[in-house]
Amino acid sequence: MKIRVGILGSSGYVGSELVRILLHHPRVEIVYLGSNSHIGKNYQDLYPHIPLNLCFENKALNELNLDLLFLATPHQMSAKLLNQAILQKMKIIDLSADFRLKNPKDYELWYEFIHPNTQLLQNAVYGLCELYKQAIKKADLIANPGCYTTCSILSLYPLFKEKIIDLHSVSIDAKSGVSGAGKNLTVNNLFCEVNENIKAYALSSHRHTPEIEEHLSYAAGQKITLQFTPHLIPMQRGILISAYANLKSNLKEQDLRDIYTKYYQNTKFIRLLPPQSFPQTRWVKSSNFVDINFSIDQRTNRIVVLGAIDNLIKGAAGQAVQNMNLMFDFEEDEGLKFFANL
Amino acid sequence: MKIRVGILGSSGYVGSELVRILLHHPRVEIVYLGSNSHIGKNYQDLYPHIPLNLCFENKALNELNLDLLFLATPHQMSAKLLNQAILQKMKIIDLSADFRLKNPKDYELWYEFIHPNTQLLQNAVYGLCELYKQAIKKADLIANPGCYTTCSILSLYPLFKEKIIDLHSVSIDAKSGVSGAGKNLTVNNLFCEVNENIKAYALSSHRHTPEIEEHLSYAAGQKITLQFTPHLIPMQRGILISAYANLKSNLKEQDLRDIYTKYYQNTKFIRLLPPQSFPQTRWVKSSNFVDINFSIDQRTNRIVVLGAIDNLIKGAAGQAVQNMNLMFDFEEDEGLKFFANL
Amino acid sequence: MKIRVGILGSSGYVGSELVRILLHHPRVEIVYLGSNSHIGKNYQDLYPHIPLNLCFENKALNELNLDLLFLATPHQMSAKLLNQAILQKMKIIDLSADFRLKNPKDYELWYEFIHPNTQLLQNAVYGLCELYKQAIKKADLIANPGCYTTCSILSLYPLFKEKIIDLHSVSIDAKSGVSGAGKNLTVNNLFCEVNENIKAYALSSHRHTPEIEEHLSYAAGQKITLQFTPHLIPMQRGILISAYANLKSNLKEQDLRDIYTKYYQNTKFIRLLPPQSFPQTRWVKSSNFVDINFSIDQRTNRIVVLGAIDNLIKGAAGQAVQNMNLMFDFEEDEGLKFFANL
Amino acid sequence: MKIRVGILGSSGYVGSELVRILLHHPRVEIVYLGSNSHIGKNYQDLYPHIPLNLCFENKALNELNLDLLFLATPHQMSAKLLNQAILQKMKIIDLSADFRLKNPKDYELWYEFIHPNTQLLQNAVYGLCELYKQAIKKADLIANPGCYTTCSILSLYPLFKEKIIDLHSVSIDAKSGVSGAGKNLTVNNLFCEVNENIKAYALSSHRHTPEIEEHLSYAAGQKITLQFTPHLIPMQRGILISAYANLKSNLKEQDLRDIYTKYYQNTKFIRLLPPQSFPQTRWVKSSNFVDINFSIDQRTNRIVVLGAIDNLIKGAAGQAVQNMNLMFDFEEDEGLKFFANL
Repeated sequence: MKIRVGILGSSGYVGSELVRILLHHPRVEIVYLGSNSHIGKNYQDLYPHIPLNLCFENKALNELNLDLLFLATPHQMSAKLLNQAILQKMKIIDLSADFRLKNPKDYELWYEFIHPNTQLLQNAVYGLCELYKQAIKKADLIANPGCYTTCSILSLYPLFKEKIIDLHSVSIDAKSGVSGAGKNLTVNNLFCEVNENIKAYALSSHRHTPEIEEHLSYAAGQKITLQFTPHLIPMQRGILISAYANLKSNLKEQDLRDIYTKYYQNTKFIRLLPPQSFPQTRWVKSSNFVDINFSIDQRTNRIVVLGAIDNLIKGAAGQAVQNMNLMFDFEEDEGLKFFANL
Repeated sequence: MKIRVGILGSSGYVGSELVRILLHHPRVEIVYLGSNSHIGKNYQDLYPHIPLNLCFENKALNELNLDLLFLATPHQMSAKLLNQAILQKMKIIDLSADFRLKNPKDYELWYEFIHPNTQLLQNAVYGLCELYKQAIKKADLIANPGCYTTCSILSLYPLFKEKIIDLHSVSIDAKSGVSGAGKNLTVNNLFCEVNENIKAYALSSHRHTPEIEEHLSYAAGQKITLQFTPHLIPMQRGILISAYANLKSNLKEQDLRDIYTKYYQNTKFIRLLPPQSFPQTRWVKSSNFVDINFSIDQRTNRIVVLGAIDNLIKGAAGQAVQNMNLMFDFEEDEGLKFFANL
Repeated sequence: MKIRVGILGSSGYVGSELVRILLHHPRVEIVYLGSNSHIGKNYQDLYPHIPLNLCFENKALNELNLDLLFLATPHQMSAKLLNQAILQKMKIIDLSADFRLKNPKDYELWYEFIHPNTQLLQNAVYGLCELYKQAIKKADLIANPGCYTTCSILSLYPLFKEKIIDLHSVSIDAKSGVSGAGKNLTVNNLFCEVNENIKAYALSSHRHTPEIEEHLSYAAGQKITLQFTPHLIPMQRGILISAYANLKSNLKEQDLRDIYTKYYQNTKFIRLLPPQSFPQTRWVKSSNFVDINFSIDQRTNRIVVLGAIDNLIKGAAGQAVQNMNLMFDFEEDEGLKFFANL
Repeated sequence: MKIRVGILGSSGYVGSELVRILLHHPRVEIVYLGSNSHIGKNYQDLYPHIPLNLCFENKALNELNLDLLFLATPHQMSAKLLNQAILQKMKIIDLSADFRLKNPKDYELWYEFIHPNTQLLQNAVYGLCELYKQAIKKADLIANPGCYTTCSILSLYPLFKEKIIDLHSVSIDAKSGVSGAGKNLTVNNLFCEVNENIKAYALSSHRHTPEIEEHLSYAAGQKITLQFTPHLIPMQRGILISAYANLKSNLKEQDLRDIYTKYYQNTKFIRLLPPQSFPQTRWVKSSNFVDINFSIDQRTNRIVVLGAIDNLIKGAAGQAVQNMNLMFDFEEDEGLKFFANL
């Protein structure tokens, strides 16, 4: 038995990865592709390398006969499109930011956007699978986490949960490939601007900051703040975060390994790398894995935690499918068993 | 009048940049190329794109008749080759690490190497031109700074000098292109290992750490330690450092701009970028410039300082020529007036 | 029921792709990894991103208890290792060039190598699956084709078979990513030598030339020669060939489309792209597909045929698995149903 | 004494290279920057890495007081802007295609554009410096050649002039970095579309074809046609052409070397590389050089000629400055003496 699935926004980089993963998934049939701009066109005519023989349509959501709808749409769209009636007809996984933050004020502050649907906001479950599995299984509406967010929270969660660092000392230095910016036509995304270049951007103001802080605050049991600085590097896929924090006491490396092992040993996709083997984005490329390791600097009694994911997979489409698997009681890694190639 | 210049190690990436810059320099004639492996071969036969019609030789240093000798040789080589007698015949600019650290014990700790020439070590002048100009002008032996070092020290110097940060709170997250690793034949430097990948390396143990700490300690007037974490990114040239520190008081951005301006307004190569314009490595590529800017995170009262250089120019060959200009009383930017192209 | 498979040479780029594909294949169990240099080490310790929990061994081939052995070894190795006795114990797929050319003299001419095993040479079946399917099904020893070769022959086969071009007018201009050169430690493979560069190499002398000529001669029913010029471009994977030929008569595009369709419509992996849609390597990346299209230049009455493959998959490991599927009567695309991602 | 120079279109990739070269040129002062979109803005505020302290203006051309105006504007613009009156006030170097083809019909056929200024078209001198030096010295209006064109014509000119190839047998396979496409905001120019990809484009229809044919026809003394196929590769700068042709007789390599030497030995920027050393784009990167070499395939009696340039320098801005030097009787290589770096 396959579930009937629809996608809004299937032609961007995240959307086409979602299509690709779902086409390999044994329990899914893609039956609807929504679009405003490609109506009537066949998917595989637009993307000759993806064998999906299905035309784009433009139906009202409440007319759709689906088990599950993915929204890989721009921000501020799903907040307007969704309502309780639609959620009674089908489950929703929203890959945009519209239902990620619990506090509506944060949307005003970080997104300059007054959230129109604060009721649904409270119903939405934050789809970070390794932390909120039970809630996800019962959810109707999943807010699929951001890419930087997924990598940052999972890399730092045990430290905050165990309170073994100074909770206010964390600086996250994040590096991302360019596909995170999507297919937007801006000079900044041109090959000649990105290649042979690195730069920081959105200094002290990136929108994933409150999302990271919210969930690490839950872990710590108190409100924390941190500094988040993203950088753009000349590659297509992959995020590496390097997070710096002050250790509270003189912990040994093995103590920390034990703590990370305790939290992650039963997960399907989090790999604590062996000692002295540090995350590289190519080891997680095109996979749903999260690679984590750390180093203690004895001289400064500080820790650097390194985490790597593929921003389009565990940072977007792959985690969305992992959420789907949990919601429909499939194996958690069904359709996600692939690992990195060169 | 031109000075007579020789180079040891002219076929690596740093060495060939040095040749290129010197060939455009109006006050210099390259008259000697030392080599063990290429003896008798003509430089431009090996490197058809560089018009230097001169053969490699292998003479003892004390037989050379030169005004200045550059050593772009592997570590542990110049420490053995140089002595006082040679320094009486010619000036030396050493691009290796062998004379950079004042404390011989640091060589044992960070380089696993017992320094054979501690007398000369004390005579050597650290060639960070913007900080030690007067000493450089009178020096016989220059220890040309490391690439990460140059970028880190110049980006952070005013903060330590003015003690407006918590002196022990600094973490430097550095990102470098691959040419910094030289032409070494290791799997790590292969295209297929570097492309579409980012990784951290030398965690808590990179050899530029004590060099950075030494000179920022001089600036602060007290011994400081910091955390230094380098990363390798898929590009050829360029270093960006992102340094995180706790501000001591609630400084405004303009206060900090005034401080940086005070220290750097009369330099030839340091550019404090305008507000909200942040360093990108392509803006300094193939130039001797250092671009610096910063952002204050009001929420955490922390600062991130960003600095960018070309690792082969200001981080190696260009700074060596700048040192030469100072030592021979040429214009400081003679032969170095070029700026970045695409 | 799974077959028992061994691999010699599993740590190179081709070998690790082979491991990756076989690990996803439902009919295969990898039970032996041969190596001289890694004996006793576990595969997944060396390659943390590939979940193969198996140690390298170094046994004589005649001691192995296998259904199938893949050799992804350097040239001149399998010619020495293999013999009739081994072939009676297990089937062999050789990914090196040692059994690709029927004429032993060609090894002397193009490989500077006197073939030690001319008897086996005659028994070997050339594993270009789309052309020699029936022979492959019955073979004990498969010579897996070269990467340039696969792309060139499949792109041009219908033209030679139908003799609609001047058979001696063909020039093939091939462009390859760097993984084709393997993990060899040469200056030419370093990131800083490859990036931002393109060059031709092996002019008029590349070893895939006689292999291409041999099979296109079979197609034409007469001995043909052609010009083959490979280029290295700054990417990891992918080959594009652009082949130029004089058309014999004024054929229309639709005539040619009909011819290509006749030969390839029943294949699993050859895609003739729609009119005006031309092959791009990213559309075949990480897949076993061959994309082909052509353009007729009315002004010169010449044709350019474009073909693209992933050099590590259809050009090596993928085609090896396709050969295995045919030899063991599995579905031809079993374990090879994946398609390109970004 | 410096000449007064203006530029229209200085913010694109070609335009900014032109600014950079002219700022280093001892005989030039940039006094006017024309723009519609940036009026009033200072150049160095837009491009912090280029020290040009001058604001964009929007004046009528006939109001300008200049010795020379460069137009680096989109096609179809200079044909409308220029007239005889303006040419009497200042010299013009047009980097667009508007005055490159002598036959107005070719504009209709290849550019779908009815040329409005066929009188000026006849006055324009084609600025391929090595072939038309004397005419350039006396010209008022220079049509600066295309990038593919410059590389193709110079690489093939001696073969057509000496008629040692079958004049109708030439196929040019050209590979270009992405900066040739300019800063246009199209999906095709995005990093994620270009990186790790190669494709052919404009098959049998690229607009540089008639330009190449026109000048090689002049060389041959008869109308020739050829096949031209450009490809896009993942790098910023550089063009390599590989041209295939049938040799008329059994020429030896040395005969061909003598012929190329005869034509090019007295040029400033054309380098015939030594035997077995073949052009690489990085050897001409950021320089005005043209590197050429060839290989004879004895088996097919065909030749492949390889030529490499930097598309933004010798293919655009550098050649424009070379034309300026000739027009104003400066040294031909003044301001262009730089050579490639890594």
